[in-house]
Amino acid sequence: MQQEIGVEDGSLLYERVASHVAGLIERGTLRAGDRIPSVRRLSRQQGVSVATVLQAYLHLENRGLIEARPQSGHYVRARKAPVPPEPRSARACTTASRPSIESLVAKVYGALRDPSIVPFGGGFLGPELLPTDRLNRTLSTIARSAGGAGVAYDLPPGLLALRRQIARRSIEWGCALSADEVVTTVGAMEALHLCLRAVTRPGDTVAVESPAYYGLLRLLASLGMRVIEIPAHPRTGMDLGALAEALGRHKIRAVMAIPNFNNPLGSLMPDEAKEELVEMLGRRDIPLIEDDIYGDLYFGEERPRPAKAFDRRGLVMLCSSFSKTVAPGYRVGWAAPGRFREEVEQLKFAQSVATATLPQMAVADFLDNGGYDHHLRALRRRLAAQVERMSEAVAEHFPPGTRVSRPAGGFMLWVELPPGTSALALFERALARGISIAPGPIFSAKQRFSGYIRLSCGLPWSDLLDNAIRALGRLCAECSSI
Amino acid sequence: MQQEIGVEDGSLLYERVASHVAGLIERGTLRAGDRIPSVRRLSRQQGVSVATVLQAYLHLENRGLIEARPQSGHYVRARKAPVPPEPRSARACTTASRPSIESLVAKVYGALRDPSIVPFGGGFLGPELLPTDRLNRTLSTIARSAGGAGVAYDLPPGLLALRRQIARRSIEWGCALSADEVVTTVGAMEALHLCLRAVTRPGDTVAVESPAYYGLLRLLASLGMRVIEIPAHPRTGMDLGALAEALGRHKIRAVMAIPNFNNPLGSLMPDEAKEELVEMLGRRDIPLIEDDIYGDLYFGEERPRPAKAFDRRGLVMLCSSFSKTVAPGYRVGWAAPGRFREEVEQLKFAQSVATATLPQMAVADFLDNGGYDHHLRALRRRLAAQVERMSEAVAEHFPPGTRVSRPAGGFMLWVELPPGTSALALFERALARGISIAPGPIFSAKQRFSGYIRLSCGLPWSDLLDNAIRALGRLCAECSSI
Repeated sequence: MQQEIGVEDGSLLYERVASHVAGLIERGTLRAGDRIPSVRRLSRQQGVSVATVLQAYLHLENRGLIEARPQSGHYVRARKAPVPPEPRSARACTTASRPSIESLVAKVYGALRDPSIVPFGGGFLGPELLPTDRLNRTLSTIARSAGGAGVAYDLPPGLLALRRQIARRSIEWGCALSADEVVTTVGAMEALHLCLRAVTRPGDTVAVESPAYYGLLRLLASLGMRVIEIPAHPRTGMDLGALAEALGRHKIRAVMAIPNFNNPLGSLMPDEAKEELVEMLGRRDIPLIEDDIYGDLYFGEERPRPAKAFDRRGLVMLCSSFSKTVAPGYRVGWAAPGRFREEVEQLKFAQSVATATLPQMAVADFLDNGGYDHHLRALRRRLAAQVERMSEAVAEHFPPGTRVSRPAGGFMLWVELPPGTSALALFERALARGISIAPGPIFSAKQRFSGYIRLSCGLPWSDLLDNAIRALGRLCAECSSI
Repeated sequence: MQQEIGVEDGSLLYERVASHVAGLIERGTLRAGDRIPSVRRLSRQQGVSVATVLQAYLHLENRGLIEARPQSGHYVRARKAPVPPEPRSARACTTASRPSIESLVAKVYGALRDPSIVPFGGGFLGPELLPTDRLNRTLSTIARSAGGAGVAYDLPPGLLALRRQIARRSIEWGCALSADEVVTTVGAMEALHLCLRAVTRPGDTVAVESPAYYGLLRLLASLGMRVIEIPAHPRTGMDLGALAEALGRHKIRAVMAIPNFNNPLGSLMPDEAKEELVEMLGRRDIPLIEDDIYGDLYFGEERPRPAKAFDRRGLVMLCSSFSKTVAPGYRVGWAAPGRFREEVEQLKFAQSVATATLPQMAVADFLDNGGYDHHLRALRRRLAAQVERMSEAVAEHFPPGTRVSRPAGGFMLWVELPPGTSALALFERALARGISIAPGPIFSAKQRFSGYIRLSCGLPWSDLLDNAIRALGRLCAECSSI
C-alpha cells in the first residue's frame, strides 16, 4: 500500500533504509558488535540523502538494534540475552461466568496511586511521552477565547469540530465515517459502556478475548453480564475457530474485542481474520463492540484497519479515545455505533448528558493543526523502543522458561512466567518491594492466567526500570512452587 | 439562625432592610405607585448607613417590587395583573409504570439546538448569568501551569482539592461531609446514575416526585426501572402521606427526590418534612437518592439543608453539580453516597474511569478563592427577579384560569394551563412560532400533566422574552378543547 501514502514522503524513505539495515541484522549478515556502513557510504549505496540515513540510524537506535559510539560510527547492538519464546494461548473454556476481579483490580490500582512505586502495572503513558505542554497550552488559549461556548452543554452527539476530525482520520483506516456517525464520550470506557448497554441486557452473555482487558471484564461485571472467554493468540488475536464453536453453543449477544494491539497481548488480528470475524457475526446478526484505542500506536509501516472497515451491516460499534495517545485526563473518547447510533446517543444523554466541552475543543484543534500526527510519529518510535528494551530486560533477568510476547503496537508486554510460578505471589512480593505489575488473573473472568503477568512499557527506559525488572526476575524464582 | 451567620455581616443588614420594605408592600401599607421613603429618611429610621439602604433598594428593584424614577425617588412597582393562584398537585396514582418519554424529550431538546428559538423549554442558564469569563480564565491559567497533572487520569474518588471544597461548604448546609465521603462525577446526572446503579437492579421499582424531572425518568427508563409517582405539592414538595402509602403497597427499592427547589415545581420541602422523609425511609432501610443541584439558588435568607443533613444511617445519597450555578459544559458534579460510597466509586471507575481533570481543578479554585460565593450572591438576586418577571408576564398574558407556581429558588416556573388546554398542542404551536416550552407530559412516566407546562427563567428578561410570553398566552386559547 506504499504507493497510496506517496513514495516521495521522507518518512517512508528513511523507514525503507532502516528496514534494509534491520534485515541485514536479522538475517545475521551483520552481527552483534559489527560496525555498520558509515552514513556517507550507505547514502551513496542507497541513493538517498545523508539526512535520510541519519534518520534511519536514529530509528534503529531507538529500536535498540544499533548503537552509536562517539568518534567511531554505528555498531550492531549486542543483545544481552536471546529473546525468549512467545507466551502460549489460553486453552478454550466453554462455560460462561460472571467476572469477579474487582478487589484484585482495586489492589493493582491502589498501588498505582503511590508515586514512589514503579508502575509496570499501569495502563497509561508517562506525561513526558504525551504532548502535555502543547495540549495544555492549546486548551489554555481556547478557554480564554471560548466565551459562552466553553461553559455551555455540548449535547450529544457532541462537538462537531471533533467529530469532523475523527471522520477525516477514519478515511486513513478504511472506514470513511461521516461526522454524523460519531458520538463523543467520556473516554473510550464510556463509549464501550454505552455500546454494550445499547445491545445487551443484564444476564446476557458476551464473548471476549482471553486474556481480556480487565476494564472490559469489570464493565461486564458491573452490568451483570455473563462472559465467554475466547482464546487469543499473542500474535494474531482471537481464535475464530473457537469463537465459531462458542457461537454454536451459547446465545451470545455481543462480542467485545481489541483487534489492533490487544491489551494485554499486543496482538494484531490480520485483515483477513477481521473480515472473517465481521462476516461470521454478521451472518448471526451479532454486534461487535470494537475497542481501537491502541490503533494509532502501530510499530509497522501502516495504521492497521479496525474490523469496522469490513462492516457492511452497521453491526460493528467502533470505540476509541485520545487517552492512550494524547491526554487520559481530558476524558475525550468516541463511538461510531453503526446502526445503533440513535440508541447510543440517547443513552449518553440519559447517563451523563454531555462530555466536557473545552477538552473536546482542545483535542479537535490538536487534530486539525497537524499536532497529533507529528506527535504520533515520535510516540510510535519511542514506544517501539521501550517495548524492545523491556523485552530485552526480561530476557536477561527473568528465569529460563519465561516467555514474552512480540507486540506489533501499543505498549504492553505479556509475559508467561516459568512453569509453576505464581503471578499473584509475584504481584504481592513485588508490591512489597515497591514494584507494581498487573497479575494475569485480572485478565480473566475465571481468574485464569495464574502464571502470566502484564508489564506496561509506558515509561521512558531508565536505570530505575532496569533495576526493577532485575528485582522482578529474582523474585520470580521465589514464587515458584516447583 | 441569623446569629449563626453574624449580624455584623453587611449583606444581612441590607436584606433585613429590604424585607422590612417588602413587608410594607405585601401587607398593603405601601401600594402600587406609592413613593417609598427616601434613602436618607430610611437610613435614619432604621439606624443603618445610606449605602445599606441603597443596596436594599437595588435588591427590591431586582426583585421587581419597586422601581427608581429618575430625579424623583423610588416607587412601588405596579403589578400589571394579579398573581394567579398556584397550580394544583397531582392526584395519587398507585400503579408502577415504565417511563416512555424519550421521543418527546428528544423533540424538546431538538428545538433547543436552534439558537433562533426562544428557549423557555431549556434547563440551563444563559452564559451571561454564569461566571463564564472568570471561570474560563481560571481554567486557562491552570491549564498553562498544570503540566503532567493536567493530562493524567484523576482516578476515583476524584480531585482531592475539589472534594475538600465541597466538604468545607457542606458545613453550611448542616452536613459536615468529609472529603473522603465525596466522589466526583461527570455532572450530577452521572452521580444520580451511579447511585441508582449502586442500590437497584433492572426491574426494581423506584419512587419519584410527581411531576418528576424528565432527566430522572429518562435515566430510570434507560435502566429498565419501574416508577411510582408520588404527588408533590408545588410549595412543599413530596406528599409524605402518599409516599407512606406507596411504601406499604409496593416493594420500593429507592426514592429519588429534589427536596430543594424541585424541578419543575420550585418547591422547597420544609426541614421537618425532610427529617420525616429520612426517618420513614430509614426504618425500612430504603436509600434516598437526593438531587440538590438547585440548593445554592435559594431566594430566601438561608441556604436550605438537604435531606442528607438528617441522615444518621448513611442511607441518603446526596448528588449535586456545578452545572446549574457555574458551568454546565465543564461537567463537574459529585456524590456523597453515604454507606454506598465504595460501590459508587467502583461503578464510576468501571463506567467512565475518571472525570476530566482540568475542569475539576478550575472549579476547585473558583470555590477556594471566594469567586463562587460572590457569584452566587448576584445570581440569586437575578434569578429571583427573572422568576418574578416571568410570573408577572404569565399573569398578564395567559388566559384566566392559568395557575403559576411560587418557586422558593431555582429558575423554573410550573404553569397549570386553563382547564381543557392541551400542553402538547401548545408545545407544537409554540415551536412553529419559534418558542420552546417543556410540556407537562415529559414530567411523568405516565405522561400525566397534559395541562401543564414548565417555563425556564434562565435568561435575563428582555422584550424578546416578553413578546414570546405574550404569544404563548394567545396560543393557549387556540389549544383549548373547551
